[in-house]
Amino acid sequence: MRSEMEKIMCQAQEGQRITLRGSVHALRPMGEITFLILRRGQSFIQCVWEDGTMTGQENPVAGLKEETAVEVIGTVHREPRAVHGSELRIASVRVLSRPAEPLPLCINKGRVKASLETRLNLRSIALRNPLEAARFRIQEGLTRGFREYLHSEGFTEVHTPKLTARGAEGGANIFCLPYFGQKAELAQSPQFYKQALVGVYDRVFEVGPVFRAEKHNTVRHLNEYVSMDLEMGYIDSYEDIMEMETGTLKFMFRLLEEEYGRELSALRVELPRIGRIPRIRFDEAKELAAELSGRPVSRTGDLGPEEEQRLGEYFREEEGSDFVFVTHYPSRKRPFYAMDDPEDGRLTLSFDLLFRGLEITTGGQRIHDYGMMMEKLAAREMDPGQLESYLMIFCYGMPPHGGLGIGLERLTMKLLGEDNVREASLYPRDVKRLTP
Amino acid sequence: MRSEMEKIMCQAQEGQRITLRGSVHALRPMGEITFLILRRGQSFIQCVWEDGTMTGQENPVAGLKEETAVEVIGTVHREPRAVHGSELRIASVRVLSRPAEPLPLCINKGRVKASLETRLNLRSIALRNPLEAARFRIQEGLTRGFREYLHSEGFTEVHTPKLTARGAEGGANIFCLPYFGQKAELAQSPQFYKQALVGVYDRVFEVGPVFRAEKHNTVRHLNEYVSMDLEMGYIDSYEDIMEMETGTLKFMFRLLEEEYGRELSALRVELPRIGRIPRIRFDEAKELAAELSGRPVSRTGDLGPEEEQRLGEYFREEEGSDFVFVTHYPSRKRPFYAMDDPEDGRLTLSFDLLFRGLEITTGGQRIHDYGMMMEKLAAREMDPGQLESYLMIFCYGMPPHGGLGIGLERLTMKLLGEDNVREASLYPRDVKRLTP
Repeated sequence: MRSEMEKIMCQAQEGQRITLRGSVHALRPMGEITFLILRRGQSFIQCVWEDGTMTGQENPVAGLKEETAVEVIGTVHREPRAVHGSELRIASVRVLSRPAEPLPLCINKGRVKASLETRLNLRSIALRNPLEAARFRIQEGLTRGFREYLHSEGFTEVHTPKLTARGAEGGANIFCLPYFGQKAELAQSPQFYKQALVGVYDRVFEVGPVFRAEKHNTVRHLNEYVSMDLEMGYIDSYEDIMEMETGTLKFMFRLLEEEYGRELSALRVELPRIGRIPRIRFDEAKELAAELSGRPVSRTGDLGPEEEQRLGEYFREEEGSDFVFVTHYPSRKRPFYAMDDPEDGRLTLSFDLLFRGLEITTGGQRIHDYGMMMEKLAAREMDPGQLESYLMIFCYGMPPHGGLGIGLERLTMKLLGEDNVREASLYPRDVKRLTP
Repeated sequence: MRSEMEKIMCQAQEGQRITLRGSVHALRPMGEITFLILRRGQSFIQCVWEDGTMTGQENPVAGLKEETAVEVIGTVHREPRAVHGSELRIASVRVLSRPAEPLPLCINKGRVKASLETRLNLRSIALRNPLEAARFRIQEGLTRGFREYLHSEGFTEVHTPKLTARGAEGGANIFCLPYFGQKAELAQSPQFYKQALVGVYDRVFEVGPVFRAEKHNTVRHLNEYVSMDLEMGYIDSYEDIMEMETGTLKFMFRLLEEEYGRELSALRVELPRIGRIPRIRFDEAKELAAELSGRPVSRTGDLGPEEEQRLGEYFREEEGSDFVFVTHYPSRKRPFYAMDDPEDGRLTLSFDLLFRGLEITTGGQRIHDYGMMMEKLAAREMDPGQLESYLMIFCYGMPPHGGLGIGLERLTMKLLGEDNVREASLYPRDVKRLTP
């Protein structure tokens, strides 16, 4: 989308006098001519001052520094070499706000040349670099696409509490805090609430923060991230959920293509190929990953990062797909509310979605029958008393349903071809990082 | 918007055989005829079983209970007395899921007749009542309108962390928690982050949860609520922010009118009158409120609930406005980052917006100059060391800017004519309530 500033430039007649506001992104003195690149949000306008064109006037650009906020008055002239095909010949400059110090890193010459650690420490400044900023414009496009598609599919957006009396998936990895004499937890997911709301709205979604007190300090973990959750009723099978995710992702990438072309090309993002997403059962995936690595099958109940990586490469090469659904995860590794496979009770009707070799989604069909739920809790020796308000929804009737969550930062990370999820969070939180 | 189920009904030919899924919302046996109201999300279809029409078949409706999830096959017949002008004559019913117990409260006969406390304890069930559910459909419309309008105005949506090292507005009323050997706080607002991101995107907004550990247990306070925040750069004055809010609210109400007519009329919601919103300075507002109540002017630095109420009534009666901006709040009652009035340093260039006598927004211009910021901190004896990454943005240059936050639940509450903010939160959190 063109910004207001760009519209003004493009619509102005040759020689028309206009006023623009922005920050001095770059100053380039070239003898008698000085180029001033004006930045406003993600728009850039080339302004030019030429000595001697305005008789008796001091050079209004001379005293400026980068990151000074200014109001520039000038006339528009066609200039094929400028970004928008025209430039602003400066008549006068009024300073709106001055920086106190020069920038601690260079933001106006291509990529910021600093370590991730430095860029994160100086995040609010590093983001002034257009390439750093473009990432989160693309992230915006992803959330817009998620919401717009689900809205068109009859979903209702909900806001569920992040302060809860009990986490969605049991005891470990939960942040706890005192709450007026009670003990509160930060929600690990909106799981219980979105299920309850299927009984109300049939189809619901939420885009919001979730909190995981995992001690992992890896390139793929954050302790706070944005989860894009959906849950839907009256499904025939977990396959309906995978279809909905496929449709949603297609729409999201189409929206990016249509409205975020500038950011995609600045970052040289290759949008993923997505048709019918291939599917593989968990046990087969384990075997395939072992075969690809020439090692024996590992007997863990999940896929490791390396296994995911190999599977991602395989399906990209063999089936031309950046995505693959892995289905039928073992019951013992899935939460109690996962629907077990009636054909083999050791498995669940659940799935993960791998995108370019990284898990970005966990989803599946849930138990909807009260009796079945109570049996599963008993089998796991869980206390139903702690889940009273959740179990209530099944007691009073729930339709067959299921859903999923997409990790926004992981999706963004793989889309951008980054190798650290921190690149895809404006202000990431990890085991060591709580600032800025 | 018509649901899928309604579309199928309305597009079907007379006598056409169709399949619908939903919950048994109500069963009304009338002698040989039984009416079954099928509910799916917020759609309701009248289904009818007539004894003897299907020879040799048992009554498929006889064993059903309310809240059973079913698949109904039947033929569509015009019936002017039914909601959609047609009804489904039942041929067969397949049960998808059965409740274990009858509902603990009546959800299918107008309003739920139970106290707020009971409805909140049984929230996930009470919401199955269409009038309870309609509130949060309207709330969805408000957030959609907020985002859509700001997107069209060139704003970028951002996601800022809720776990922070230091709260936005100082020490009191903050939830604290241990964080891997550090001490974390839950964000009271995205204030510092949205300001920092003005330096990046010029205009930003966020819709997300905020947390306030206030001990107030009143009809207008929640300890977790959804804040709709915006912040914008290159403003001339705090009045630009008020204009943006006016435009945003107009758009939000228009969207409700266009797309949520069914919910508005079910709840008999009167959309507010909103033209140019009247403005009054804080000191004048205090005097007017005193005059209206016949009491002496109270010398507090804020407006009390009763004063807000009186001002709301006054502007509704005198100027036909449901809204009034109160401007120029005293500096001592505003956060340190508020821009002081150059004409009177005891006041700030800030405002609250009252809607039907309740404050729903606080906003204003912020300090953008580093020197001015440091002076203000010194005057308040605040330690700049604790605000390092925030102060950095001013040190390296920030444009003049300002913004606001709208409390989603308060806006919803007053729009719906409710007298308790808990009615406008799906799962409210207060000093005593951390469940469901």
